[in-house]
Amino acid sequence: MSDRIAVKRAVYEENDRQAALLHEIFAAKDIFVVNILGGPGAGKTSSLKQILARIKDRPVSVIEGDITSDIDTRALKDLGIEAYQIETGGDCHLNAPMIDAIVKRMSLKPKSWLFIENIGNLVCPAEFVIGEDVKILVSSTAEGADKPYKYPLAFQKAAAVILTKEDIAPYVKFDEAYFRAGVKALNPDAPVFGVNALSGEGFDAVSAWLRNARG
Amino acid sequence: MSDRIAVKRAVYEENDRQAALLHEIFAAKDIFVVNILGGPGAGKTSSLKQILARIKDRPVSVIEGDITSDIDTRALKDLGIEAYQIETGGDCHLNAPMIDAIVKRMSLKPKSWLFIENIGNLVCPAEFVIGEDVKILVSSTAEGADKPYKYPLAFQKAAAVILTKEDIAPYVKFDEAYFRAGVKALNPDAPVFGVNALSGEGFDAVSAWLRNARG
Repeated sequence: MSDRIAVKRAVYEENDRQAALLHEIFAAKDIFVVNILGGPGAGKTSSLKQILARIKDRPVSVIEGDITSDIDTRALKDLGIEAYQIETGGDCHLNAPMIDAIVKRMSLKPKSWLFIENIGNLVCPAEFVIGEDVKILVSSTAEGADKPYKYPLAFQKAAAVILTKEDIAPYVKFDEAYFRAGVKALNPDAPVFGVNALSGEGFDAVSAWLRNARG
Repeated sequence: MSDRIAVKRAVYEENDRQAALLHEIFAAKDIFVVNILGGPGAGKTSSLKQILARIKDRPVSVIEGDITSDIDTRALKDLGIEAYQIETGGDCHLNAPMIDAIVKRMSLKPKSWLFIENIGNLVCPAEFVIGEDVKILVSSTAEGADKPYKYPLAFQKAAAVILTKEDIAPYVKFDEAYFRAGVKALNPDAPVFGVNALSGEGFDAVSAWLRNARG
């Protein structure tokens, strides 16, 4: 085994160990954790805002992951949402040590929701668990219908898929049947919710699914 | 220095060394190499097709990078273009050793163009040179105007930016002035070409720029 592969494996193992500990901490406090994945500009933050407008039954906090900048965190704070920023400084995904470090600075409320928006990237974030109960994948019609075929791991790991920008599907010649067939082949149990994250259309179903997933 | 950082640095150094060798080989044959970056579904392949329809002065070959699948390579071959596939099997960017391995299987034509489409990812591909003369960054209006602020390295490294999906800019409420200001702050010399990669609008200017960059 090369040094590089050995180091990579050690990184995954250490991450998984720390993520399992985080999940225990969250579960003990009845905090349901949602890890939101998606490419750059898929509509992760817009989707999150629509979900937060509909999940009013319990306290909510948000962790925003970015390479650099706190644009989204400031936008959420402007809406009165308790949001915390992780800037990875170049790293292309969040990992369990980053979440561990930031939750130590947060006052985690029992019986609450914690939404974590990952780095805009369809590849690496799918490889790292960060203590979540479920992953949700946000994919936009503008990205094209071939995304499940090109980035299968992210679609395999997602408990649900939010398909954004449904309103512009005709303009970008989006083939929804091809997209849905790709998701189904990889992940037969994951629902695909077609939405418009600007108008909010479709998010009642997403929120109902989340409440049900929490159980 | 931790083992992890030492290995990461060694990976960069080995990559840079091999990329420099590749660049020498390409330059000796007067092959101009364009490394195309962009997030998933930004319109890299569609842009490439429009460029290839306009660059008819010299032979062209294409290397397509994907995590998995050869959808784009087959589409290019269907158009009669000499295209080769790299499947990284999970890696989130191309690197110089991958290019070195595939060019050994190609018959590199002197005085030609070589276009390399990188993995759909706005983060990691920006960190790895692969023997190219220039990087071009493809970013779509649908991804949102904040991309230069969130993914600065890719915008810094690009010699030119292709802004795709201009036709749907009004529907996705794209703030072009904000986008252009972000590019300008990071990379004052890089032109931004607004295009529609389905209709071909705007690609005459891109192709003229490429011919000029080649010199």
